[in-house]
Amino acid sequence: MIPTLQEIQEAHDRIKPFIHRTPVLTSQSINELAGCEIYFKCENFQKIGAFKARGGMNSVLKLSHDEQQKGITTHSSGNHAQAIALAAKTVGTKAYIVMPSNAPIIKKNGVKALDGEIIECEPTLEARESTVQKIIDEKGATFVHPFNNYDVIAGQATAAKELIEEVGDLQVVMAPVGGGGLLSGTALTTHYLLPNAEVIAGEPEGAADAILSFKSGKIEKAPYIKTIADGLLTNLGDKTLGIIRMYVKDIITVSDEEIIAAMRLIWERLKIVIEPSCAVPFAALLKQKERFAGKKVGIILTGGNVDLGNLPF
Amino acid sequence: MIPTLQEIQEAHDRIKPFIHRTPVLTSQSINELAGCEIYFKCENFQKIGAFKARGGMNSVLKLSHDEQQKGITTHSSGNHAQAIALAAKTVGTKAYIVMPSNAPIIKKNGVKALDGEIIECEPTLEARESTVQKIIDEKGATFVHPFNNYDVIAGQATAAKELIEEVGDLQVVMAPVGGGGLLSGTALTTHYLLPNAEVIAGEPEGAADAILSFKSGKIEKAPYIKTIADGLLTNLGDKTLGIIRMYVKDIITVSDEEIIAAMRLIWERLKIVIEPSCAVPFAALLKQKERFAGKKVGIILTGGNVDLGNLPF
Repeated sequence: MIPTLQEIQEAHDRIKPFIHRTPVLTSQSINELAGCEIYFKCENFQKIGAFKARGGMNSVLKLSHDEQQKGITTHSSGNHAQAIALAAKTVGTKAYIVMPSNAPIIKKNGVKALDGEIIECEPTLEARESTVQKIIDEKGATFVHPFNNYDVIAGQATAAKELIEEVGDLQVVMAPVGGGGLLSGTALTTHYLLPNAEVIAGEPEGAADAILSFKSGKIEKAPYIKTIADGLLTNLGDKTLGIIRMYVKDIITVSDEEIIAAMRLIWERLKIVIEPSCAVPFAALLKQKERFAGKKVGIILTGGNVDLGNLPF
Repeated sequence: MIPTLQEIQEAHDRIKPFIHRTPVLTSQSINELAGCEIYFKCENFQKIGAFKARGGMNSVLKLSHDEQQKGITTHSSGNHAQAIALAAKTVGTKAYIVMPSNAPIIKKNGVKALDGEIIECEPTLEARESTVQKIIDEKGATFVHPFNNYDVIAGQATAAKELIEEVGDLQVVMAPVGGGGLLSGTALTTHYLLPNAEVIAGEPEGAADAILSFKSGKIEKAPYIKTIADGLLTNLGDKTLGIIRMYVKDIITVSDEEIIAAMRLIWERLKIVIEPSCAVPFAALLKQKERFAGKKVGIILTGGNVDLGNLPF
């Protein structure tokens, strides 16, 4: 069932002791440049450097003690892998993380630093899923999907909850969209707490599946995949698509040039490190400035896990 | 006269409405790696992106209305130029900023964005000083030295004041040393508020004048100048040297490799943008870990004005 306001509040109470309440930053010079009033919710400062700590923590804490003790498993080469490793470590159990053999070493090291056990497989979705199934069968571990899971969605929904509690009457709330876990959680919280506010997403032109699914109502694939925003390559799931169709106003696509320019502005003006995927909603706002003119806008900055040896500027 | 505790408190009350109270950040993974408990005072989030806003603001606000109206002048190609432009704009007067003709365009644009008037001169200290003198003679403007000025020192001293007020019983307080304005202010505040704490500075090996001056008691020049920490090239002044000799425990020099590694760690773990000069005290701590083992250490992160198109990694 789609998380209720009470379930989001319970998720927040559940995870609060184990995550950071991240700061909300503003910049006068960015506001002047954008022509509106922007409140950046800095999940790049979250544990593991990304909002995914929230959803991973909520889904693992909600399991029974017996379930927890049998371990947690997922397949991910990104921030969700570290989120699950952190959550498993927090409750004192094992995380079995299935990663494609070509996953970046930096991601593997992140999981290992949190005592996660990495199981390598071929870099195909089929291999990832069958390897996870083997772990479920052998260990009795619980699988936590990175986004198409209501407990994960309720956890991600707590970022917008903190933002709205702190800033109050936002007129627009923005997030990027990949698999849609954060976007659907953000849309639910905003619907419950600020029913008159609009939720608008940003999506890379080079992974523009969500905008198609949003229009057609079916899970679509992107026409092509080529973007620097490597955290947003995934298609939606049925659960996230359902919520997004109900509570999201619009999805704006942006080019990689626009993403890089927005990312650079945030680094230069806010003095914070964010990853390319994270700059997507701000790029969307800058692309359609007139639409946001004079408004009070909240943007969820999703993460700061970037390879400093390979920056786009 | 060397600023008293009361004068530092007055400076703080004076500048508070016009500067940010910057956050203090911590990182569990950095603490584990460093073997001590570090509190980073994030002046990279300060107005103009650097602590210099404090000293510039205090010195300009302290002038009489008549003095203010005649304008403010200084020579600087760095953050002090923007600090004076901001302070002048704040009190509604003109800033005449003398800059060498080869100063980076990004620095010139920073001054222009704050309505400062740039007067170019040859890139020599003599030309800078004589050009400033001409402005003083013609306009009656007041010259504000970037560091060898007790009002500037009292302003910079407020960063450590906020840090100590927030964290309490630090055993060590660290800052980088260039001209010594921040270091002498930090040393004064620490002496007044935490008389048992040690103040330790970091200095680049490739601009190692302060350590020589600290030992000899005279203003010395660096044996050679070659460092990425371009904010720390200046020699001490008589006022800063006097305070540093009295209240600083030690100066540790670090190589550019050590500075870049420390800078990268802060970007990766704290997810914040800092400039190379800013990483110098943390590099000094990492170089002499055993000395800080288990201690509660405050580090002033001085600024985040870095050219993203020219990073050392």
